[in-house]
Amino acid sequence: MTYCVGMKLDDGLVFMSDTRTNSGVDNVSVYSKMTTWTTPGDRSLVLLSAGNLATTQSVVSVLDERSKIPEERHPTILEVPTMFQAARLVGDTLREVIETQHRDSGPTADATFNATLILGGQIKGMEPRLFLIYPEGNFIEAHDDTPFLQIGEVKYGRPILVRSYEPAMGFEEAVRLLLVSFDSTLKANLSVGLPIDLQTYKRDSFTLSEPRRFNADDPYYSAVSEGWGDALRSALTSLPDFTFP
Amino acid sequence: MTYCVGMKLDDGLVFMSDTRTNSGVDNVSVYSKMTTWTTPGDRSLVLLSAGNLATTQSVVSVLDERSKIPEERHPTILEVPTMFQAARLVGDTLREVIETQHRDSGPTADATFNATLILGGQIKGMEPRLFLIYPEGNFIEAHDDTPFLQIGEVKYGRPILVRSYEPAMGFEEAVRLLLVSFDSTLKANLSVGLPIDLQTYKRDSFTLSEPRRFNADDPYYSAVSEGWGDALRSALTSLPDFTFP
Repeated sequence: MTYCVGMKLDDGLVFMSDTRTNSGVDNVSVYSKMTTWTTPGDRSLVLLSAGNLATTQSVVSVLDERSKIPEERHPTILEVPTMFQAARLVGDTLREVIETQHRDSGPTADATFNATLILGGQIKGMEPRLFLIYPEGNFIEAHDDTPFLQIGEVKYGRPILVRSYEPAMGFEEAVRLLLVSFDSTLKANLSVGLPIDLQTYKRDSFTLSEPRRFNADDPYYSAVSEGWGDALRSALTSLPDFTFP
Repeated sequence: MTYCVGMKLDDGLVFMSDTRTNSGVDNVSVYSKMTTWTTPGDRSLVLLSAGNLATTQSVVSVLDERSKIPEERHPTILEVPTMFQAARLVGDTLREVIETQHRDSGPTADATFNATLILGGQIKGMEPRLFLIYPEGNFIEAHDDTPFLQIGEVKYGRPILVRSYEPAMGFEEAVRLLLVSFDSTLKANLSVGLPIDLQTYKRDSFTLSEPRRFNADDPYYSAVSEGWGDALRSALTSLPDFTFP
């Protein structure tokens, strides 16, 4: 499994992903599920991936290679004029990769090669946008009513996001909120694991911040993880007392 | 779907269940998923059910009918000498019902008639016990390391239970905690719905408290549901601030 979240804020976009991949509980590895493309001053894009690792790595490689030899196939992810077209390009690539893997795998395949992606970013002259891309290649966009998108193991970490997200929150607050959501998921599903990758994108900056990785011994992550139990107990205590009649 | 929780406390047992059953989102009904048997002074048992409604109703009816005509088949749920044997009786009944439904349904059946149950209670001379019973008829018991059992849509409401459960908490605190867990689940999954049924069992009382039902307009449920958003935001604020380097 996997847990990734993309979030729209008034200030820009925030992306967080875990790094655990597994094939059974006895075969666990660390792989980043976050890929970025940026042309300073023109565009910044972030891709988060959940699903079959062979599929998602292949999608990223295809998009990457094409952007390095743009004469072969236009337009590349560094050339598309809008985020909508970037989402379509990524969706088409995802569908092609899945189709190819199914066709090539022959009768030995007993797995589906599905994957789901989150793509967010901004291209000069337009608003920041955030998409969730399905294995079929189609996609939905985050809007004011649904301002964050999750893929992978979405359930454990969802209630805190639903309750506490505010579009006006700063990046610092958003990171704190997302770490709580990730911590709840990590505590419940072994197939979601540390380290956690973080990337923020400041609106109209057309450049990406330094990526940040939270390891198991990260003091801030530990403080959040350890403090949250006490904080929740205080929150419960602040609710009115129940009394039996 | 469904959401039910059975919880062991030092003081006894607490049971909570939603009441929504659905066959698609366009066919929704209210059914209690909580059944109780009690012989004052001797035993009190509570059964929570998730899964196919025809299966779970049938299991309850079979157990109920046999307890009223004990001469036909011994021992009934009101006669078994231990909670372990009660769990075995319920498990056997569940497996029989599922087998019968599959055998009788013939080639038109395209559904599984599965169900999962939680059984808790106390029989005189023994400790209170709590079991989760699978469709295969086998079961696991709640122990100190895993003191509460969930069935149905378990994920959304789990993080708050994992973080805030304490065996020493009183029934009042447990009800407040469970309502928060249920509220998080209701907010995320349409197939879990109000009203919510509550039953508590005080250790060594061998009698059940008056059942309590929380409707949509219940003032305490509304206070918890409305207050929890603010309480969570305060809890987040109490965590250390994140700062970018």
